[in-house]
Amino acid sequence: MCRWLAYYGDPIPLELLLLRREHSLIDQSLHSREGATTTNGDGFGVGWYDEPGGEPGLYKSVHPAWNDRNLRELAAHVRAPLFLAHIRASTGTAVQETNTHPFRHGRWLFMHNGLVREFPTVRRDLLLAVDPELIPAIEGSADSEILFHLALTFGLEDDPLTALERMVGCVEEVGRSHGVEHPIQMTVAASDGERIVAVRYSSEGESRSLYFSTDAQALKALYPDVDELRALSDEARAVVSEPLGDLAGAWNPVPESSIGVVGPGRDELYRFTPRGPKDPAPSERESLVPG
Amino acid sequence: MCRWLAYYGDPIPLELLLLRREHSLIDQSLHSREGATTTNGDGFGVGWYDEPGGEPGLYKSVHPAWNDRNLRELAAHVRAPLFLAHIRASTGTAVQETNTHPFRHGRWLFMHNGLVREFPTVRRDLLLAVDPELIPAIEGSADSEILFHLALTFGLEDDPLTALERMVGCVEEVGRSHGVEHPIQMTVAASDGERIVAVRYSSEGESRSLYFSTDAQALKALYPDVDELRALSDEARAVVSEPLGDLAGAWNPVPESSIGVVGPGRDELYRFTPRGPKDPAPSERESLVPG
Amino acid sequence: MCRWLAYYGDPIPLELLLLRREHSLIDQSLHSREGATTTNGDGFGVGWYDEPGGEPGLYKSVHPAWNDRNLRELAAHVRAPLFLAHIRASTGTAVQETNTHPFRHGRWLFMHNGLVREFPTVRRDLLLAVDPELIPAIEGSADSEILFHLALTFGLEDDPLTALERMVGCVEEVGRSHGVEHPIQMTVAASDGERIVAVRYSSEGESRSLYFSTDAQALKALYPDVDELRALSDEARAVVSEPLGDLAGAWNPVPESSIGVVGPGRDELYRFTPRGPKDPAPSERESLVPG
Amino acid sequence: MCRWLAYYGDPIPLELLLLRREHSLIDQSLHSREGATTTNGDGFGVGWYDEPGGEPGLYKSVHPAWNDRNLRELAAHVRAPLFLAHIRASTGTAVQETNTHPFRHGRWLFMHNGLVREFPTVRRDLLLAVDPELIPAIEGSADSEILFHLALTFGLEDDPLTALERMVGCVEEVGRSHGVEHPIQMTVAASDGERIVAVRYSSEGESRSLYFSTDAQALKALYPDVDELRALSDEARAVVSEPLGDLAGAWNPVPESSIGVVGPGRDELYRFTPRGPKDPAPSERESLVPG
Repeated sequence: MCRWLAYYGDPIPLELLLLRREHSLIDQSLHSREGATTTNGDGFGVGWYDEPGGEPGLYKSVHPAWNDRNLRELAAHVRAPLFLAHIRASTGTAVQETNTHPFRHGRWLFMHNGLVREFPTVRRDLLLAVDPELIPAIEGSADSEILFHLALTFGLEDDPLTALERMVGCVEEVGRSHGVEHPIQMTVAASDGERIVAVRYSSEGESRSLYFSTDAQALKALYPDVDELRALSDEARAVVSEPLGDLAGAWNPVPESSIGVVGPGRDELYRFTPRGPKDPAPSERESLVPG
Repeated sequence: MCRWLAYYGDPIPLELLLLRREHSLIDQSLHSREGATTTNGDGFGVGWYDEPGGEPGLYKSVHPAWNDRNLRELAAHVRAPLFLAHIRASTGTAVQETNTHPFRHGRWLFMHNGLVREFPTVRRDLLLAVDPELIPAIEGSADSEILFHLALTFGLEDDPLTALERMVGCVEEVGRSHGVEHPIQMTVAASDGERIVAVRYSSEGESRSLYFSTDAQALKALYPDVDELRALSDEARAVVSEPLGDLAGAWNPVPESSIGVVGPGRDELYRFTPRGPKDPAPSERESLVPG
Repeated sequence: MCRWLAYYGDPIPLELLLLRREHSLIDQSLHSREGATTTNGDGFGVGWYDEPGGEPGLYKSVHPAWNDRNLRELAAHVRAPLFLAHIRASTGTAVQETNTHPFRHGRWLFMHNGLVREFPTVRRDLLLAVDPELIPAIEGSADSEILFHLALTFGLEDDPLTALERMVGCVEEVGRSHGVEHPIQMTVAASDGERIVAVRYSSEGESRSLYFSTDAQALKALYPDVDELRALSDEARAVVSEPLGDLAGAWNPVPESSIGVVGPGRDELYRFTPRGPKDPAPSERESLVPG
Repeated sequence: MCRWLAYYGDPIPLELLLLRREHSLIDQSLHSREGATTTNGDGFGVGWYDEPGGEPGLYKSVHPAWNDRNLRELAAHVRAPLFLAHIRASTGTAVQETNTHPFRHGRWLFMHNGLVREFPTVRRDLLLAVDPELIPAIEGSADSEILFHLALTFGLEDDPLTALERMVGCVEEVGRSHGVEHPIQMTVAASDGERIVAVRYSSEGESRSLYFSTDAQALKALYPDVDELRALSDEARAVVSEPLGDLAGAWNPVPESSIGVVGPGRDELYRFTPRGPKDPAPSERESLVPG
């Protein structure tokens, strides 16, 4: 339905990933290879942190990303150590800025590719599950915006991993109570400006594609002559709906039903387990990082 | 906050009222005289019926009405026997087409000037009062859109006068339960394509301005030389936030707390009495028509 | 680059051709089969005549046609005996309403698929060739808008066939004076509200695709059971960049270097011969209509 | 017609002048006090330099400045040592991004308040006066865009003061040849990222308002307790269509027929003298800086 990317590392101009790749996000807006639709032209958004953990800025538009001049300007002039970008392919929901990702709450950004199945049917029950204090902040009609407010309701700001598992648990519970077989399909990214949390999950176990970039230090050793790699800091990492280019060894599929954390220090990858809204956080998480 | 007009009569080009008056609706978008704001530049909408009782068409835009070329084109080329038009001045809610009026449900159109006070606080409770079947149709974040869906919930399609009274009763009940002294301020118009129902009401008894035009037959007798009047059929009537011109005797203020019906046959004007969502329809209505 | 269609016949709702075909113009905005690009998402326009020979109305937008709700509304509510519609794929020129087609001058509409090669280089000389009185009417930066004003300069309103040949002759002369081998590539439609003039031509003799629909009377005889055909009057005819469906025998390619006229009476098709801006109109035209 | 501001000094967030003043530029978009129109809602633009003399970034929109959320985001997150911002009130010319200011060429930005009188009549001759190499860069239909390209033609990049005088000389010459009594009315700002050149001039000697801020060092001495002043560097200077607040002594009217330069070192103010396109630069300029 949509395509997205998230970047963490030393500050780079946004355009390095949004525009200046063979298969950049803007290229994907016209020519997605792995998405459900090749065209993602129903608006876009980018959220960036001026510095780690600061208040993020947002630029959103209902224009297609490929012909929006302001996006090119912004991408050339804004540098950030962490940013999220998203291009949308609507499946009927209104094309309006409040339906474009990433969504923001305080320091947090959130974006989603996929869908809540039979959303018209379950929308009211999901709204009821949102913390009443958060209801005024809902401005659009997208399922993704409600997902975000569910995650906030369930503790995103304190324990993001558990909150995202509760969010999915809630959606699956509500969906199944309405007879929906596979209530949710998603890849999701959330950030507080210090790290990126990314999930690949679907009720049916066949999730939309998601990739993370190989460790930049290793990549630079592998390809000492590739200029664009030299610009990256050793810790730089991107998580993307589909690879930004064809460099062998540069992109790794995220496993099904997993949740990763990219940020300072060693990156993590765990099994993702939907849980009830009131289920406690797990005492320990099963790591999926090899070796 | 906003300005609107509604027309009923023989088919006329929309531009006759939207553009070709000294103080047309488009003039009001820049120079409102009686509104809370002089500029109403946060989008607009027009809904029209090709024929009485048909499915209405809608044109909505987030551009200011005064510089939207498409509106001028449409207004010059579309003729209708009944139409509603609205220009918006947002008080912070997102400027998006789904927040512009008129709203539509089947054959019904609805538009509103005013506000639900402390809407963020009462929004969730009002949503809960909406028929669950109607929730999927809510696309924006405006108080007015919820008002419309409350009216539909309370029987707008069957008994519009009672439904609008229940809508206000519900909003006042919810508002007061949250400590809001004067929960609602409004002028409202609704139509099924055959007649226009218009209300002027506010909890505090000091409602936004509303006028209805003098009987066209009488006006033509009064001003036999005014060309623009000759184009109007005898039954033609407009209901407007503020007069479209300065012709003496042409415009009459709608009384406080009243509801009028404009359509085939003699027009009606009654006292408007908020009532509980489950209160029965009144057996008789108090007419405010003089004589 | 772009896709377009033109319709002449008894009044039909625009949506019949814009939306309600297997491969309607809106479908082509996402999935063009024969165009240089599959996506035509850089704005669109539709121009229609309320009655033959009247002043046309225009609706233009920079949004992609597939997600523009106003277009769907208009297409459902406007009926016209003659209309032109165009979806744009920009090759870098600004995405703005003044660059979308059709362009209008008085009763005339004009639209174009293709390009003036090395337009930045030849633009000034082409502007100089435009009647100075027409210069104030140029609002955008598209080559097509200048083509239209050249055609007007060379007599479009009096003798459209000769004017279009002079327009091409002028562009080829200017282009070649700047060393451009194949100065123009085009399919073009122009209309005064009574008939459609359509051209398929390119300097290199390999023009963009163009089709005209088979005589509606013949089609109805061939497919007596196809509902959508029964709605068409016997004289109804469409000219399109690519067929709107797969009905065998319904669509015929327009020959290279030809100009056709669709309107009341027998339709015509002639050889198209570029000529100098001051060359006289031909005394006779070579018909390409088979025996 | 329009309102603008230009800032030079130590880097500040754009919002400090665009939003966070009593009578900020965004406030002026709804409530201009000294302009020809109180509403300036036909689009806006802001151009900024990341560092002195770099390539500027641009953000332009056809939305009114007061309701554009992206502008608020950008203004909060972008800091710049030099920026130009402009809000537009169209007098009929298309509302499109290519008609909004500032215009850009390489490192140069340019913006204008006022008009070229009888522009439709003189447009062609002015276009002919533009360097043919620059014609491809003209994308819109505004008189101001042609003014900029005339200034570039006449040497803006080498000797901006003389180039602006030649630009006006050319417009006056062309205008008078068409019988226009007072061909130009303007305040103008241009910048290469290192300094701002601003002009107040009109053929009739009654120019639109223009102010420059009092020396920041002096202001801080005068008002030691005003917080917002303390954020300004000693060299900080703003040039504005109308004062951003009511602080006594903070704003000084720019004299009629004068041109100023704001940048590193002592700011300058000279008499502005229109001159022929081929007239030489003056050997000396008459300073208008008092004592």
